[in-house]
Amino acid sequence: MSDFPTYIGALAADFESHFEGVLPNVTGLESRVIDAMRYAALGGGKRLRPFFVIETAKMLGYEDKGVWDAAAALEAIHVYSLVHDDLPCMDDDDMRRGKPTVHRAYDEATAVLAGDALLTYAFQIMASPKVHPDANVRLELIADLALASGHHGMIGGQMIDLTMDSHPQTQETITRLQDLKTGALIHYGVMAGAKLAGANEAQKTALSTYASHIGLIFQITDDLLDVEGDAQIMGKAAGKDESKGKATFVSILGIEGARKKAHELADEARTQLAPFGDKAAPLLGAIDFVLSRDK
Amino acid sequence: MSDFPTYIGALAADFESHFEGVLPNVTGLESRVIDAMRYAALGGGKRLRPFFVIETAKMLGYEDKGVWDAAAALEAIHVYSLVHDDLPCMDDDDMRRGKPTVHRAYDEATAVLAGDALLTYAFQIMASPKVHPDANVRLELIADLALASGHHGMIGGQMIDLTMDSHPQTQETITRLQDLKTGALIHYGVMAGAKLAGANEAQKTALSTYASHIGLIFQITDDLLDVEGDAQIMGKAAGKDESKGKATFVSILGIEGARKKAHELADEARTQLAPFGDKAAPLLGAIDFVLSRDK
Repeated sequence: MSDFPTYIGALAADFESHFEGVLPNVTGLESRVIDAMRYAALGGGKRLRPFFVIETAKMLGYEDKGVWDAAAALEAIHVYSLVHDDLPCMDDDDMRRGKPTVHRAYDEATAVLAGDALLTYAFQIMASPKVHPDANVRLELIADLALASGHHGMIGGQMIDLTMDSHPQTQETITRLQDLKTGALIHYGVMAGAKLAGANEAQKTALSTYASHIGLIFQITDDLLDVEGDAQIMGKAAGKDESKGKATFVSILGIEGARKKAHELADEARTQLAPFGDKAAPLLGAIDFVLSRDK
Repeated sequence: MSDFPTYIGALAADFESHFEGVLPNVTGLESRVIDAMRYAALGGGKRLRPFFVIETAKMLGYEDKGVWDAAAALEAIHVYSLVHDDLPCMDDDDMRRGKPTVHRAYDEATAVLAGDALLTYAFQIMASPKVHPDANVRLELIADLALASGHHGMIGGQMIDLTMDSHPQTQETITRLQDLKTGALIHYGVMAGAKLAGANEAQKTALSTYASHIGLIFQITDDLLDVEGDAQIMGKAAGKDESKGKATFVSILGIEGARKKAHELADEARTQLAPFGDKAAPLLGAIDFVLSRDK
């Protein structure tokens, strides 16, 4: 795939328009919280998780529009996590995707509620027959989404991150943290695409390894960006982890070591896609995209 | 039913022990958030919502243990809402059920995450085949739970409550607020019991009216307690709404008017239960219990 950034950019634009239609309209005395949900969810982002849902299903020959609803449910979970992680009691960030965070644009209480509402709405979207005609597929997607985003998934990762000082500062700890905090939802995206498309066990195994590696590469490049990145390109503050003295892949492996690790993982991820032939081009492109991203 | 408080107390104790087994064990580097989930969820509460799920199903002759799991999912939603509503940026409460609130016992970030995790876990519980053998029943329970607790449900009610100053201070506004904030989950509890038991349409209609009335009675007595209650019995501060100048059923209808309204709703709720005969005793008892509660 020669121009992956253009490809994923076009998909992100299509997804934005679909997501806009899936989100609730701003009505009722309770409209402020819906307004905040839409503010948080729309207007930017790479839409990497929707990309993995949609492109994995497509690679396996499945292009039903329900895949886009499943992608919207997953993205709603990702967006809620950003809203809550940005809160003053968490990472205390003022900017996100180049605009004020929800608690800055509204207020803290509205940000908590808008996050709760996006999280709740994700499950409402996923329960709809529009996602997939088979009720058992939808139930599996719901149960897996709760697992991937719950106390032993994304939320658990954020908990470890916040209490990092009390854990051993080892590569094992960082890997576990990132497997949960970032990896779980990316992994879920790939596997949701596979399940919607009815992938066989061998395909699921290969895609699961691919997805785990992508998640780790994503986090290693995040750590590299944190020490090397340009705050203006990233649209958020660089050097935050370093200034907080937090252990990262870079602090443990060094810049060169972290870069080497990311490239090794990328090679292994490519190997997993070989059986899918030419159709794997978008997922292959995603490896280099995540590896060389500058924000 | 001669001794309803003893009856619901025994059910609450049984539910507590079931809930304890449904909640995750405290393990992993992420254990702090699980510990906080259990701290919030266990050790008290009337368990009114589980009561409605379990007793409605039982009245209709359905006593499968999956009903208790559905009740646990609903209670997890209720508990998460208390944890988030207690946060400093919301109602800023230090005590809940006679012990420090989660953000006091742990910290704000952990309270946000523990609430998120309980909310997420509720859907994981409900997706399990243990709840009901029919996949479509589980999906309906999931979709309805998201609706009842989401932006046009409980969360919407909390949003209206927080922005009450900007709305007309009318009985219509208060009723809408309470229908969403408190009523939606109580209504859900009754209807979940009905759906698990396979109730027919006439039964569902009667139970839906019963449930709506119970929710309103619950809130009117809450407002009455706020002006008349004893802080020591309630285990939380009395007079909070009045001191904040917030419109309530009492401020709009007066103490006598509010009491009269509650009794009218109770009479109508009783009428709805007539077709169920003697088996309706627990649901009948709940009317008087909610009407005359002192905390």
